[in-house]
Parts: sequence; structure tokens; C-alpha cells
Amino acid sequence: MSEEPRGAARRKADTLAQLAAAGADVWVASASGGPGGASPYLVPLSLSWLDERVVVALPVDSRTARNVGEHGTARLGLGPTRDVVMIDAVLEHSLPVDDAAAPADRYAAQAGWDPRTAGGGYVFLVLRPVRIQAWREANEIPGRVLMRDGTWLV
Amino acid sequence: MSEEPRGAARRKADTLAQLAAAGADVWVASASGGPGGASPYLVPLSLSWLDERVVVALPVDSRTARNVGEHGTARLGLGPTRDVVMIDAVLEHSLPVDDAAAPADRYAAQAGWDPRTAGGGYVFLVLRPVRIQAWREANEIPGRVLMRDGTWLV
Repeated sequence: MSEEPRGAARRKADTLAQLAAAGADVWVASASGGPGGASPYLVPLSLSWLDERVVVALPVDSRTARNVGEHGTARLGLGPTRDVVMIDAVLEHSLPVDDAAAPADRYAAQAGWDPRTAGGGYVFLVLRPVRIQAWREANEIPGRVLMRDGTWLV
Repeated sequence: MSEEPRGAARRKADTLAQLAAAGADVWVASASGGPGGASPYLVPLSLSWLDERVVVALPVDSRTARNVGEHGTARLGLGPTRDVVMIDAVLEHSLPVDDAAAPADRYAAQAGWDPRTAGGGYVFLVLRPVRIQAWREANEIPGRVLMRDGTWLV
């Protein structure tokens, strides 16, 4: 049976712990499109939670980097599917990993992998959450919105 | 350290086992868009693997159902992020859950949840894989494509 639903403060604390966990990965959904239609893309990536931003590292010419660069938004899913954190995020900026010593050190510390060793062509995408939801089972659907319009509700 | 990379036959067998597992969930990425741009969407859903199709049940007016209905494609991610199955799929058809006794019974058996009890307005999306990739760690990136253009390579 499901446990009792968590309150907002507990969900926020759990969410922050998931985001800051060593080796945390995130599913990154992006979209390409234009007048002819829209197409979804999805990949799992290592993340780092830096200054309330989700930071991911990936090849500058990857489909995700191009989609997010073009349209400015991503939707992120963390956790197993029954302990979910969903984040709608906007691209704050991107920068080559070699131009970002301080964030690169912090990224490498959390991810356990340093994209500066990848042989070039990697960028960081710095994604600013605008909406965060967290739920486990159906009884946590009410109260799942923890951040709206970039502001924590708790 | 990583294990030895799996061969193609083993990856296919593992993939089919993940798809057929009781209680399996899938991350479903879809996209909306038009002349003004494209926007990604992402949700975790229970799946059933029926006749080589990924079947999910969701409200007909949900954003995922509308996106997939409009653009005809979804990208699916299964498994923890270090034991991944990625599926590019096309919408074969959708149908109200109440009009589909046989698939509904099979869906309920795998998912452990019967959308016919949800109070109405649910549809099945029947998604046909056209490309399937499976990998665990970086050493499994080579050889990760198991299906291409709807045909198993192994």
C-alpha cells in the first residue's frame, strides 16, 4: 500500500536531495520543430545542481543541445517513475566546458565525470527551473506543484 | 567497474524482458509545436507490451495524447538511466479503453491498473517502435541499435 502523502516541505527537501545526489541522472526531453510539425527527443544525462540550476554537459552538436538552443526549453524527469520530480526549465545560458572552471569542477564532483576530458566540443547547458512537481503514487498528485513561475511555493 | 558489454542477442532479450515486466513504467516524451516554435513534454506512464507494440493509457485530453495525436511520434525511455532502453515510436492508432476488451484485459494484467475503472475519457495509444536502442554504461554505446526502420537487427 502507499504511504501517507508527503507534505510540501518534505517534498521540497526530498526533491533538493535528489537533485544534489552524487551520480544523479536526469531524463531530458526537448523538441525540434517548425511549420511542418514537431518532434520529441529524450536522453538520460548526468546532472549537477548548482545555484538552483540544473546543469548538464553534452556535445554542442547533439540533438538535445540544438533543440534546447533553438527553442529555449526542456522538460526534465528525475527519479524512478514512482518517485518522480518533473521540472519545466528554460535555458539560462550555455557555455563551452573549457571556459567554465568553477562550474566544471563542481559538475565533475557531483557527476563523477569531467566533460573537459571528453576531447572537446562539450558545452554546459544551464537550465533554470520555472515549474517543479514531485509525487510518488496517485495519492500524491494533489499538492505536487512545488515551484511555479520560478518561485518555490514552500 | 563496468561489466563486459552485452552482445546484441542478450540486449534484445533483456529489452523484451524490461518491456514485458509486470508494473513496467515508461517515460513518454512528446512535442507540441507549430510555426512559432516547439515545446517538449514528458510524463511517466504504465505500459503494456502487446504484439510488439508499446501500449499506454491516458486521458484523451491530456497533453501527451494531444501531442502524439497531432504529430504521430513519441520517444520512450525505459529503465534506470544506467540500464536504458530508448524507443522511437509512431502512433499506430488510438482507441477508447472501453472499446478494447482484449487489449484492456492484457493491459490491466501487466500494468496492475485498469483504465476502464478511471471514470471515463481514457484512451489507449498503440505505439509501434521503429528504432530501439539499449545500453548500460559507456562501453555499451557501440552496438546499441537493436531495431532500425521497424526491423529487429538481431
